[in-house]
Amino acid sequence: MQSAEIIAIGTEILLGQITDTNSRFLSEELARLGINCFFHTTVGDNPERIIACLKRAASRSDIVITSGGLGPTADDLTMECIADAFGSELKMDEALLAELKEFFAGRGYNMPSSNNKQAMRPVGASILPNPRGTAPGIIWELDRAKLIADGLISGQGQESGTSTIITFPGVPHELRAMWKETVAGFLSERVVGETIYSVELKHIGIGESSLAEKYASLLEGKNPTVAPYAGRGECRLRVTAKASSLAEAESLVKPVVDEILSESGSLCYGRDDDTLESVVGELLRHSKLTVALAESCTGGLVSTRLTDVPGSSEYIGLNLVTYSNEAKMNELQVPASVLEGEGAVSEACARAMARGVRRKAGADIGLAVTGIAGPGGGSEDKPVGLVYLGIDSSQGTDTKELRLGNKSSRSEIRYRTANESLNLLRLYLLERQDKTFEN
Amino acid sequence: MQSAEIIAIGTEILLGQITDTNSRFLSEELARLGINCFFHTTVGDNPERIIACLKRAASRSDIVITSGGLGPTADDLTMECIADAFGSELKMDEALLAELKEFFAGRGYNMPSSNNKQAMRPVGASILPNPRGTAPGIIWELDRAKLIADGLISGQGQESGTSTIITFPGVPHELRAMWKETVAGFLSERVVGETIYSVELKHIGIGESSLAEKYASLLEGKNPTVAPYAGRGECRLRVTAKASSLAEAESLVKPVVDEILSESGSLCYGRDDDTLESVVGELLRHSKLTVALAESCTGGLVSTRLTDVPGSSEYIGLNLVTYSNEAKMNELQVPASVLEGEGAVSEACARAMARGVRRKAGADIGLAVTGIAGPGGGSEDKPVGLVYLGIDSSQGTDTKELRLGNKSSRSEIRYRTANESLNLLRLYLLERQDKTFEN
Repeated sequence: MQSAEIIAIGTEILLGQITDTNSRFLSEELARLGINCFFHTTVGDNPERIIACLKRAASRSDIVITSGGLGPTADDLTMECIADAFGSELKMDEALLAELKEFFAGRGYNMPSSNNKQAMRPVGASILPNPRGTAPGIIWELDRAKLIADGLISGQGQESGTSTIITFPGVPHELRAMWKETVAGFLSERVVGETIYSVELKHIGIGESSLAEKYASLLEGKNPTVAPYAGRGECRLRVTAKASSLAEAESLVKPVVDEILSESGSLCYGRDDDTLESVVGELLRHSKLTVALAESCTGGLVSTRLTDVPGSSEYIGLNLVTYSNEAKMNELQVPASVLEGEGAVSEACARAMARGVRRKAGADIGLAVTGIAGPGGGSEDKPVGLVYLGIDSSQGTDTKELRLGNKSSRSEIRYRTANESLNLLRLYLLERQDKTFEN
Repeated sequence: MQSAEIIAIGTEILLGQITDTNSRFLSEELARLGINCFFHTTVGDNPERIIACLKRAASRSDIVITSGGLGPTADDLTMECIADAFGSELKMDEALLAELKEFFAGRGYNMPSSNNKQAMRPVGASILPNPRGTAPGIIWELDRAKLIADGLISGQGQESGTSTIITFPGVPHELRAMWKETVAGFLSERVVGETIYSVELKHIGIGESSLAEKYASLLEGKNPTVAPYAGRGECRLRVTAKASSLAEAESLVKPVVDEILSESGSLCYGRDDDTLESVVGELLRHSKLTVALAESCTGGLVSTRLTDVPGSSEYIGLNLVTYSNEAKMNELQVPASVLEGEGAVSEACARAMARGVRRKAGADIGLAVTGIAGPGGGSEDKPVGLVYLGIDSSQGTDTKELRLGNKSSRSEIRYRTANESLNLLRLYLLERQDKTFEN
């Protein structure tokens, strides 16, 4: 089984100015490929310390992955240190230089000369393309026996084979794209390991401890293991198996996943990369229904999340953010009597907003959100965190009251309100699907 | 100046199942006390590797801080490994055991026997109390000369003084409480360090390398240091000074910050916790102007961000997400001829949308966004990433074309478009403020 380790490079991490999320992403992906990761190290922008870390890592692990230090500025030292640590020198890659210049030209800029250094790579290393930015990485397969003979690393029991060095920039979305497009395929072809396979089942409407209680017996299992994690306004159950092949690991996971799916029913909204918005989008597309939103306290967040799904224009034409009472009256025909009597944060207002936006947009479903996100604007009667949702269709209007507590921040209340809105829509669509199926 | 390093212990971190946020918290706090932190290491629940990490850390740093591995289960090994690494043995602390039993009794439970091990500590170590949980830590001051003489660590140039070992549990809120109540005070009494103070100046409309070129001479400074960081659609310059007091550090930072502010002008939109939306909100509030948004490809993201600022109802009443052509015509009076001739993604459409939404909402300023966020919908003529912004006020209409490249993901294009929209509004408000001031 191959081993890897991860080195995050950057003084800003050691100063606590940013959290290193790359190491977690890389670790998760390595585990998926069945590659053991025994160490994470973070080191600052100091050549001596970086070189010592690189040599130690290459001595004890087969694969060394770095993130950070590939930028154009003087404190970006990763490439120089790698060349130095493993006995090579940096050379300009003319083709890469041309590509970089093109990248800048495509955005209407001349490339600053400081970016030249991003086209340098150690002699013998392959370019790891960066589809999202100007800092490419390298993949460099080195002869382990030669590194030991040259006194550059110590063998630590493994004197032959290759040492693979892979470098990423520190920008997370660039690193992730480079992993997916190139490195994942490169490594999975080369490793023969024990595969770890896991499925995450995402739940909404049940807390972590209730979920753990519900599945207490499964949580005792050894292979697969089942573990609950609390997310942001949701909970996940992760089912993980280890086996010598992916197929075997999958076959260990499958019956447990099936059991949970059947037990959880609509409490489980999706798995792995599913989001509430992608699941709702799929249901809308499948049912050929359209939706229109009228948001107050969420200020467009439900709309933003729904339209984050590619192709959402199939089921969304018009959404409104009616922040003021005037906008609620003029645009959605919320009666002045409701606003004066029950107020903008009320069941009646949510109901009227849902009806109004459905009619205005000519959509099949109207979904409305009105509430108090805080920090100001709360009262004893209507505290911060009080929210009303409304959903309207040809089958009638339904509402839901949320009390999201005054201990949450504005953005937390908005996020959880958006979750609940999307979930209300999801449950409505599921029920309607069932009815259609029954008829 | 004292040096520290942080060791996070736990296989779950190496498997990528959780993100280590403790190291960031500890690093930030160490920097505040003026203690240099040169390394973070993460190691799994393996005694041999944990012991090797502990010895290496104690050899090269004055203070070694661990998190994790203090629980009651068999894979919680930190205390055993520390005793082993530094030549001591574990002994039951009877007073601590009584306290633990009391903790459980107070919650109505009998203490499980597995928790006994949480009352064990190396002979000579002091208890670090845990006000929030059952796992206390230790603070252990060891004689460096003796450790070296016993062959337990290597001196690495520093042969005398103390090596301090501090252990925390991995649960973040417990670790933070223990830091605040005990460790912060303990360390600040013992270290004669320097305070680190920094200011971050956030820029938009200039890339990292151009920013570095513009401030090349400042980037060479030693105290304060100036370093550029690329953010998401923005760039930051961080000015950091070290001094023996906070006041002194502040006085070193101030002239450099002033110089950058004056040089950067409107390229610098804010500092530290400022966001584009909070800065725009402040400008709107100050100028007593209202704004209305008409969004297409951003689907409500600009509205979401602007309304994330508490009190935004002062300057926002109504925003629209006009996703379909029909919505653009019906709600914003975009002429059919524009949509048929130039199309929905065009300067003319952005202009009409900005005018339309301003009129509809009765706002002082109308801001419109229309573009192609991808991944589908692009053509040779109008590629993914092509976006038009429009801004309309009593002073006329202005537009801006963006080409955000086809290398970015849908969510990246949407995010950067929102940044550019907020920045267009910011620049408009700044200019209007200047004009008002001149008159």
